[in-house]
Parts: sequence; C-alpha cells; structure tokens
Amino acid sequence: MARIALGLEYDGRNFCGWQTQSDGCGVQDALQRALANIAGHPVEVIAAGRTDAGVHAAMQVVHFDTRFDRPMSAWVRGVNSFLPDSVAVLWSCTVTQDFHARFSALARSYRYVLLNHPVRPALQAGRTGWFHAPLALEPMRAAAQLLIGTHDFSAFRAAACQAKSPVRELHNLDIRRDGDHIIFDLKANAFLQHMVRNIVGALVYVGKGKHAPFWLAELLEQRDRKFAAPTFAPDGLYLSAVQYAEEWGLPVTQRLDF
Amino acid sequence: MARIALGLEYDGRNFCGWQTQSDGCGVQDALQRALANIAGHPVEVIAAGRTDAGVHAAMQVVHFDTRFDRPMSAWVRGVNSFLPDSVAVLWSCTVTQDFHARFSALARSYRYVLLNHPVRPALQAGRTGWFHAPLALEPMRAAAQLLIGTHDFSAFRAAACQAKSPVRELHNLDIRRDGDHIIFDLKANAFLQHMVRNIVGALVYVGKGKHAPFWLAELLEQRDRKFAAPTFAPDGLYLSAVQYAEEWGLPVTQRLDF
Repeated sequence: MARIALGLEYDGRNFCGWQTQSDGCGVQDALQRALANIAGHPVEVIAAGRTDAGVHAAMQVVHFDTRFDRPMSAWVRGVNSFLPDSVAVLWSCTVTQDFHARFSALARSYRYVLLNHPVRPALQAGRTGWFHAPLALEPMRAAAQLLIGTHDFSAFRAAACQAKSPVRELHNLDIRRDGDHIIFDLKANAFLQHMVRNIVGALVYVGKGKHAPFWLAELLEQRDRKFAAPTFAPDGLYLSAVQYAEEWGLPVTQRLDF
Repeated sequence: MARIALGLEYDGRNFCGWQTQSDGCGVQDALQRALANIAGHPVEVIAAGRTDAGVHAAMQVVHFDTRFDRPMSAWVRGVNSFLPDSVAVLWSCTVTQDFHARFSALARSYRYVLLNHPVRPALQAGRTGWFHAPLALEPMRAAAQLLIGTHDFSAFRAAACQAKSPVRELHNLDIRRDGDHIIFDLKANAFLQHMVRNIVGALVYVGKGKHAPFWLAELLEQRDRKFAAPTFAPDGLYLSAVQYAEEWGLPVTQRLDF
C-alpha cells in the first residue's frame, strides 16, 4: 500500500464545489474517477481544503492510498488525460502513511481577486470578483489589521458551516492594487466556510466609506453574521497555497503567479 | 445621425468568431442584438479586426450609426446589461462620420500567451496556448527579427484568407518570459487570417531546436503555407490594441494588463 500526494489546480466554475456529491459534480468526483482509471481500483482522496462551488484552486493538495505501484508520471500525465480541461494534476509525490493532506497542513492561503472598475469583467468573467465604485486601500488595510491573530470569527461564518470551533488564527491579510484589480491575500491555520468572502465583503464596505475601519473590531466582538456585509461572489476566490512541514518533502505547494 | 465608437473585450470561447453568422453565434451578433435594444432600431457594427473562433479581445474597437440620441452611459452600462457575461463594452465615444473602425486603424496589436510547462493548463484552459517541452527564447527572438518589415506573408496565411494582398508590414515582434508563460507581442498595419498563430507555430519549431532561426527567412521566401509549422491553437490569442490617429480623440485603445 502506497500513499501518494498530488498538487492540483482547477477552475471552480464547472463544479458544484470540491466535495463529492451523489450526482458526481464535485471536483473530488472528477479526480476520483480519473485516478481509478490509473489505479485499477476505486480511490478516495482527502483534500487540504474543501472549496465551495465556483471557488478555484491554483494549488490544492490531496492524498490517497493505492494498492498498485505506478510510475509517478502516471499520476500526473496519465490522470490528466482522464480529467476534464478545467482540472489538472501539477505534481505527484510518494509520502509516508502518517502524511494527511488535511491534518498535516499547518496553514492555508487564499487569494481574492477583485476587479475595481466601473465596467463588469468579461475576459475574466467567473474568474474575478467585481466592485464598480472606487475603493480606498488605506482604510481597508487598517481594518484588516484588526482581524490578524486568534479570534472567534463567528461574524464571518456561513450559517451552514460545520466546523466544531469558530476560532481561527489569521496570520496575514495583505491588500494591494494591481492595475484595475485589488488583490487580497489571506493566510490562516484554517478557514471557516465563506470566511474569506465575508471578510472581503466587510472590507469593501470600509473601502467605499460606509463604515470606519474600527467596524471590523465591532463585528468580531458581536460574533453575529447578521451584522456583517453580504458574502462576496466565489468568482474571485482561489486556494493559493497549503503549508506543510518541510520534512514531508513535498514539491512547491504555493502558486501565486496565476 | 450619430456615429459612435466602442471599445470592448470578450472571451472568444463562447463564440464562433467575431463575424456575424446566420445562426447568430458571432460576437458581432451578440453586440448588435444588445445595441438594438438601446438604439431602438437594427444596428450594424464594423470592427477593427475580425477575430477567429476561440480568439479573444482585450481591446476591440467598433463603430456604428444610430438615429437616436442616447447618453454615453447607455452605450456602456445599458448595452452591457443586454450582453452575455463573456462580452463587455469598456467605453463609448461620439466620433465624426469620417471615422471608420477598420479603415481608420493605423495598426493592430495581437498578444499570444503560451504556457510553457510539462502540465497542460486547467485554471487557464481556453485562455492560453500550451507547449510541453522547454523552449529557448534567444533563437526565437533571432528568428522573429527576420519577419520585421514589409513582406509577402503567404507562408503564414490561412488557405481561406480573403485578403486581396498577402503583403503586410510587421512593426514589432517581441518575445518575453513571464513565469511559466511565454508572451509574444506582435504589431502590424494589419494581419492575414491565422498569421499570428502560424508565426507562433514556426517560432516554437525554432525554440525547440527543430529548425535554425534562418528557417523563418526561407519560409518567407518560399511563400507557401505547406512548408511552415502547424497553426497554433486560438486559445492563447488576444487582440490587444488598435492604433488610431490622436485627432479622433478616442479613449485608450490598448489593454496589456490582462
């Protein structure tokens, strides 16, 4: 029995989210079908992060167990030949049995790409969020600082979120402008469901001047989703990195050049 | 009667090319349907460049005539509300009757984006060309220099090309690496059908070492498509700029930040 880790990217528009569904519309379903064709037996994969419908991955990490020995190229080129155009395995790597894509992950990074322009995206439709009115970066950055650290993030949590605890440690929340886009880079030990999209929604309220930066501290304190801003669209959200201890010997688990 | 110029972007994947078709699958058809809803009468548009099926535009310029006075915002926000997600009008501008989107254009620029990586694109599927093996930039640049200037480009012309003359003036052909991508930027007075995709195909043959740079001069001289390389996929091709004389007073007709 061998345990294999894979790095993959996907365009979330063509899927109902990462997780397996009875009608097979999850990214996980597409990957498991392709892997079974190479492995010669049913395969179940475990992912570092379960992305929602429409959310993309520039770097998702998964692991699975297989009974048969295959060359590493089979898990990349072979699997890719069975995957739809919008998913691809970037690398594969044999790991020890104690590696777990989800539980061994030390941190996850998400990027939210927001087009800040009067005209909606066309060339990037489904690949970027959009806000039409000008946004001020400095108040958003000041607000972002109030979220760094270990907090109860209930105010930014989806009603359907199944996590046992609403406490997460947010390591970074960097905001920069890149042409007509604003890029939000977030890193945390883990994220609650819709957490990034809800945080971006609140920051946009601050950026357009509806609330002062300190509003973010009040939201955190209230721990109640109903006081926060609307959830932003999944279109601009990318899982961009998963951090593991170096001892696992994985290839690059970060992609920021997409 | 007013003449209006529009700048627009589109994702070519969802269309059978720029030009109007009897089944309405052209970008031109989608735009004309949307414009008619605002104008209140049928509208015929003329474009700077007729892109093929699957080819994108970061900046296409068109003009049309309308009998009714509308605020400029109607030709942007109003028209965009009637367009599919993958097309958007970026700006509108009233021009004099002697402006012609095609005949007034002094030059067109196209960009070809090529993923040069062992693994095919997924996040950028349909939005980038792909070549799996390493490519050497310097021989491609040397070969590109042989194409600059006024030449008979018959060797790089599609069989179905309807242009009267195969002679074009190529102003620039710049090649640079950007992470895992190679970016080809071409500017000419005008282009023959498939000219960019055929040039990129020939340059890739040089980049992988199949031919020396001087092969491009031989191809030009032979003026015969059958000696050249295969036509590259439309996926990575973008109309990126249309140049007009400043006197027309058009907004920015170039987009290179896509």
